[in-house]
Amino acid sequence: MLNEALQYAQENQERFLTEMKEVLTIPSISTDPDHKPDMEHAAQWMAAQLRSIGMENVQVLPTEGHPVVYGEWLHAAPKAQTVMIYGHYDVQPPDPVELWSTPPFEPAVRGDDLFARGSADMKGQLLAALKAVESVMKTGSFPVNLKWLIEGEEEIGSEHLDDFIKDHKELLGCDFCLNMDAGVMGADQPSITTGLRGLAYYELKVYGPKKDLHSGLFGGIVHNPAQALAELIAGMHDKKGRITLPGFYDSVRKLSKKERKDFARLPVDKKMYLEQTTAPALWGEPNFTPQERLGARPTLEVNGLLSGFTGPGSKTVLPAWAMAKISCRLVPDQTPKETTRQLKKYLKAHASKDITWELTYLHGAGAALVSTDSPALKAMTKAFQSTWGKEPYLLREGGSIGVVVQLQKRLGVDSLLTGFGLPDCDAHSPNEKLHLPTWSKGIDTLISFFYNLAGE
Amino acid sequence: MLNEALQYAQENQERFLTEMKEVLTIPSISTDPDHKPDMEHAAQWMAAQLRSIGMENVQVLPTEGHPVVYGEWLHAAPKAQTVMIYGHYDVQPPDPVELWSTPPFEPAVRGDDLFARGSADMKGQLLAALKAVESVMKTGSFPVNLKWLIEGEEEIGSEHLDDFIKDHKELLGCDFCLNMDAGVMGADQPSITTGLRGLAYYELKVYGPKKDLHSGLFGGIVHNPAQALAELIAGMHDKKGRITLPGFYDSVRKLSKKERKDFARLPVDKKMYLEQTTAPALWGEPNFTPQERLGARPTLEVNGLLSGFTGPGSKTVLPAWAMAKISCRLVPDQTPKETTRQLKKYLKAHASKDITWELTYLHGAGAALVSTDSPALKAMTKAFQSTWGKEPYLLREGGSIGVVVQLQKRLGVDSLLTGFGLPDCDAHSPNEKLHLPTWSKGIDTLISFFYNLAGE
Repeated sequence: MLNEALQYAQENQERFLTEMKEVLTIPSISTDPDHKPDMEHAAQWMAAQLRSIGMENVQVLPTEGHPVVYGEWLHAAPKAQTVMIYGHYDVQPPDPVELWSTPPFEPAVRGDDLFARGSADMKGQLLAALKAVESVMKTGSFPVNLKWLIEGEEEIGSEHLDDFIKDHKELLGCDFCLNMDAGVMGADQPSITTGLRGLAYYELKVYGPKKDLHSGLFGGIVHNPAQALAELIAGMHDKKGRITLPGFYDSVRKLSKKERKDFARLPVDKKMYLEQTTAPALWGEPNFTPQERLGARPTLEVNGLLSGFTGPGSKTVLPAWAMAKISCRLVPDQTPKETTRQLKKYLKAHASKDITWELTYLHGAGAALVSTDSPALKAMTKAFQSTWGKEPYLLREGGSIGVVVQLQKRLGVDSLLTGFGLPDCDAHSPNEKLHLPTWSKGIDTLISFFYNLAGE
Repeated sequence: MLNEALQYAQENQERFLTEMKEVLTIPSISTDPDHKPDMEHAAQWMAAQLRSIGMENVQVLPTEGHPVVYGEWLHAAPKAQTVMIYGHYDVQPPDPVELWSTPPFEPAVRGDDLFARGSADMKGQLLAALKAVESVMKTGSFPVNLKWLIEGEEEIGSEHLDDFIKDHKELLGCDFCLNMDAGVMGADQPSITTGLRGLAYYELKVYGPKKDLHSGLFGGIVHNPAQALAELIAGMHDKKGRITLPGFYDSVRKLSKKERKDFARLPVDKKMYLEQTTAPALWGEPNFTPQERLGARPTLEVNGLLSGFTGPGSKTVLPAWAMAKISCRLVPDQTPKETTRQLKKYLKAHASKDITWELTYLHGAGAALVSTDSPALKAMTKAFQSTWGKEPYLLREGGSIGVVVQLQKRLGVDSLLTGFGLPDCDAHSPNEKLHLPTWSKGIDTLISFFYNLAGE
């Protein structure tokens, strides 16, 4: 049973890797309309995988955006739990492409790592689940019921997934969701994520003159929009790194003493964060530790800036407009709606009358805290203990996973968050990579997890 | 003599326009290395023009950058003045190309205007001089000696022209320089420019983490470089629009009562500036009028901003770097060298240790005030009076013309600054245009000017 499945995984490792490389060649970039055919291709690839490992009722279901892939196997013993396995087949854009050592969609193994866009986030991690299930299916009877929910819009905020879940409540009914998009803390530091930050993503445009002007002819009598945007952005934090949007911290839940102790117990330190971020120095609210700031404090980030002339050389232009992509990471009990109101209030108060501005809300999701007292969590803890020889850390993550919020809201279903990507995997950056030894250990962990679930 | 020349210009107007359109099809963008062959093409076109209108010793002379075109005619009566006619055959990049109604290098006449990149700045204005000289040459003996200095680097700061002038002092010796790169105030407002602002152009880069990071995984512990750049830029002006670089105004020459009176006499008002700039409201130092701010006060402008993700949609990236193009318009007695020192001092004082920065000086030139008491100025004043029926305004301009500073410094030669482009010509912007009736009147004005010169 368990041992046969682990042996199957061991014997088929080479083929698993080959199949993973295959799906990594598909540039399924959800944010770019040019890649719509690749999105369809990736969805069909996932459906074929589900069928090949013995899933039934496999469907590629349309949404108003990219399709959702569904599949199920519901023949476990009566009273067995039903586990939904969540994943996404879309990836981030590979820009800046010139910084990749090998092309982002030509998977390349160097040392212990497989380099490709999506290798860690999250085609690779999803493959671990597919291959763990295959190993159990091919060597015995599956100990629990399974449903799969594989979406194509995670990297753009799971915009249409919420409606999809609402419209398919019966089909998606389950006891809990296994979500491997959270990764682990390190190759020898297994972890389960019990909290996630939310997100509110915006585009802010500042307009001045209706057209670009000659900076010599008109410089000095017009409020330069790039300067005005810089002034607005600069005012969004105070000198201590606190966000100044009116009321921004009002609904931020205070950390309890117990929570601060849990944060302090994590095996992290400033040196590690400096190495991971490669920043010259750390930054942020001085009254909170780096791990608290990442897990339990909201942020406001500039994700992009564009204005005027940006090519090589010089152009003496006074630009007509300036744009910033701005996003907030949210914590309980903030909501994107509230953040939008606060940001607008700030802009109304601080934007001068010599410019105009436009704020577009692109997407977002609330934060989530997941129950730490569930059979699923216990089964995963045991699986990590037996496979890694270590008890997993329980932690709160800085990133946002829209589906976790949506499943809780629509189905009342908690998510068990873990994964087999490492913090230095460069998800969203050039040279994204998957640590292959951790990936293999991940397949074994999931095989144990499924058997543990039947015993809980 | 005079009348024959004017008649010749009248009769050949169509052909003049055809030749102008021809040179406007050459995309001689000096800042873009891809256009090097077009630069060579434009230089050769100018040389051919000079030969065709009777100039001698015509040469395309190499520099370390783009070549300089030289030509001369030195057979005027003894004691006749020698006039150098200056021009440039390079143009600004046409970006953003999508905002042009017709392609930037396919000249198109709509109404009274000829639309094309370089039509006003300054191939069109240069053609006015070439055609005025042709008209005089073909109908009589030229009343003064002529030299031509036509460079290809004006739009990138005339970087190699200074060395060229230094190395060709004898060849370029003259009594004064006629420079038509300044334009006039309006179609019925002739003007001569007696002052020019200087320029110092920079690229500022702010670096944080060595690579783009996931804003969820690391947001809150790293000083976002785009935010840090915005903070630095925002601090470069105070709330009143005064520049805060240490010592920035120390060497700015104070306006005399007489000078402020001259500024107040100019036929300009806020309404006109609002129309020309199309900005929602005017901006700048409250203690100076708009015309004073443009002519006699220095500025610091952001010409471009770039950081992180700027495409459609969203990417939750914490960018590794952020870039700004920043330039200062300088007034007497500021120097680019001094400005560079002040900007560096500001950055050292205000940049925090959690980022690094790099400032690159791209190019610049000091400001210039030109003598208002010269025979050339009188000859041009008379030419405007006879051709336009109006006395020209004497004004100070906001833009910078490197060659004016260089000719003064190297040869002790003053420049007579005027032209036939209008303030709403959209030089450096999409849909740059030349007002053809003003252009024709310009040719006549120059014909009169040459004859007036002999009489002074």
